[in-house]
Amino acid sequence: MERGGPIVRVGWIGLGIMGRPMAENLRRASFPVVAYNRSATRLEAFVASGGRAAGSPREVAGLSDVVVTMVSDTADVEEVVFGANGAAAGIHAGSVVVDMSTISPRATREFARRLRERDVDYLDAPVSGGESGAIAATLSIMVGGEAAVFERCRPLFDALGKRVTHVGSVGSGQSTKLVNQVAVLGNLLATCEAIRLGAEAGLDLRKVIEAVGAGAGASWQLTNLGPKIIERDFAPGFPVRLARKDLRLILETAEDFCLPLPGVALVQQLFSAVAAIGWGDGGTQALIEVFDRLATKPQ
Amino acid sequence: MERGGPIVRVGWIGLGIMGRPMAENLRRASFPVVAYNRSATRLEAFVASGGRAAGSPREVAGLSDVVVTMVSDTADVEEVVFGANGAAAGIHAGSVVVDMSTISPRATREFARRLRERDVDYLDAPVSGGESGAIAATLSIMVGGEAAVFERCRPLFDALGKRVTHVGSVGSGQSTKLVNQVAVLGNLLATCEAIRLGAEAGLDLRKVIEAVGAGAGASWQLTNLGPKIIERDFAPGFPVRLARKDLRLILETAEDFCLPLPGVALVQQLFSAVAAIGWGDGGTQALIEVFDRLATKPQ
Repeated sequence: MERGGPIVRVGWIGLGIMGRPMAENLRRASFPVVAYNRSATRLEAFVASGGRAAGSPREVAGLSDVVVTMVSDTADVEEVVFGANGAAAGIHAGSVVVDMSTISPRATREFARRLRERDVDYLDAPVSGGESGAIAATLSIMVGGEAAVFERCRPLFDALGKRVTHVGSVGSGQSTKLVNQVAVLGNLLATCEAIRLGAEAGLDLRKVIEAVGAGAGASWQLTNLGPKIIERDFAPGFPVRLARKDLRLILETAEDFCLPLPGVALVQQLFSAVAAIGWGDGGTQALIEVFDRLATKPQ
Repeated sequence: MERGGPIVRVGWIGLGIMGRPMAENLRRASFPVVAYNRSATRLEAFVASGGRAAGSPREVAGLSDVVVTMVSDTADVEEVVFGANGAAAGIHAGSVVVDMSTISPRATREFARRLRERDVDYLDAPVSGGESGAIAATLSIMVGGEAAVFERCRPLFDALGKRVTHVGSVGSGQSTKLVNQVAVLGNLLATCEAIRLGAEAGLDLRKVIEAVGAGAGASWQLTNLGPKIIERDFAPGFPVRLARKDLRLILETAEDFCLPLPGVALVQQLFSAVAAIGWGDGGTQALIEVFDRLATKPQ
């Protein structure tokens, strides 16, 4: 493959809730995609719908101009890229690894450095918008890395999201995503406390969401998750277990900076309770259940 | 005055940052307004601009169909309504007291009960939108009280705000306002922590506000106060000392319900620090200064 030439063949690693519809969107945009997934069931489903599979990340990399990873956590990215049959073992010089998972910014810079030694470029490109955004190709994508490499991969991002922002050098995408999650989860806590207080005061909560959502208390969390919170509909848009992983990454990153984030720390503690009462796979709005359990009076 | 007839003569008590422009908007809408203010300077300024003054809340009430109170706290409302020369001493049967301050919902119900004994109606109608909303007559007004009384006073509210919501019986307006403040101040904490984390990570904060504000982390606080936080512009839209009063009201109300609100409690503790370091009269965005002081490294 010519260095700096157009991205054609896409290797895709990770066909979970987010990765599967994203890979399908690339196929729909006429990119030839070859995929790998750790669990065979999900890989077979991809093949059954007409997708092409490979037996390992290494094999995926050998067939691709760019390798996209969309897995859960830092250790998963390390495994699929640098593990025994990892992508790095099969990758061509001059190609690109694009990590769209949400992982550690510090580890991201280290991964980029290790790939640079093999003459492979790296972009961190985590996304926001949840499963619905992945399906509709309306994700917000925050990209860190060299501008030329970003431009080269832009057609791929354009097929996956609607707001694609190049935020800076390698690691900046992950840092921006963590900043995003501070806002998301902090606003969710405020939303749950506001709604529970309104419920205790006997207010019409739909009217409250409308009134508060029109002013200085407005937030995406209130408008979009508020109605689900009122109905105690905990179907996952963004699951608690991934929110807990993001909270851990935020606090680890802040600790590196000696930056105290007491609000995030509180949210993290409360999400331990959400998981403890059985909502690890539920949506983050299940946080209201903690307040319900703490404040429900005996009959 | 005929019971249930149209509101014509407005008595206005409280010409502070919010009250002054609101009273002026009523005059502009052709309501005859007679005003009282505890500090003579502010009352004289009102007269100098063509307004009419009275010597006490009692005198104001004697000249009015409706008495509006726009003061700081629960004790101030009690004083101007039920104190020695308070409005209740001069008020006509069949008229209305409309309290637009943000005060205790419980005390509000008690004030309404005491006025009911004198055949005087009561609405609680706190506002959101700050000084700029008061000047532009774009306030959001959350009204509690009887529907018929609300309808009677609606022309007055329409001259002061753009979203007027009748949320329920007496006290509901104040409860809704407190719910609003939980969202406002919780989202502000999330905004400050997000921005400070982004700064530590060396990100371009304007890009971050844009990227985060387009997704699930969006909030009024981020979009409107975020840029001021970046510039450390602490000019007050909503002053810290009033936020502290609201935090106290929220926690008192929640305590009545035995409802724990750990997020609000944390914000309250941090606002004690904001006041301690001298920003009591600054805008609430001065909360970032606490994080600056906690996390700034020695040179």
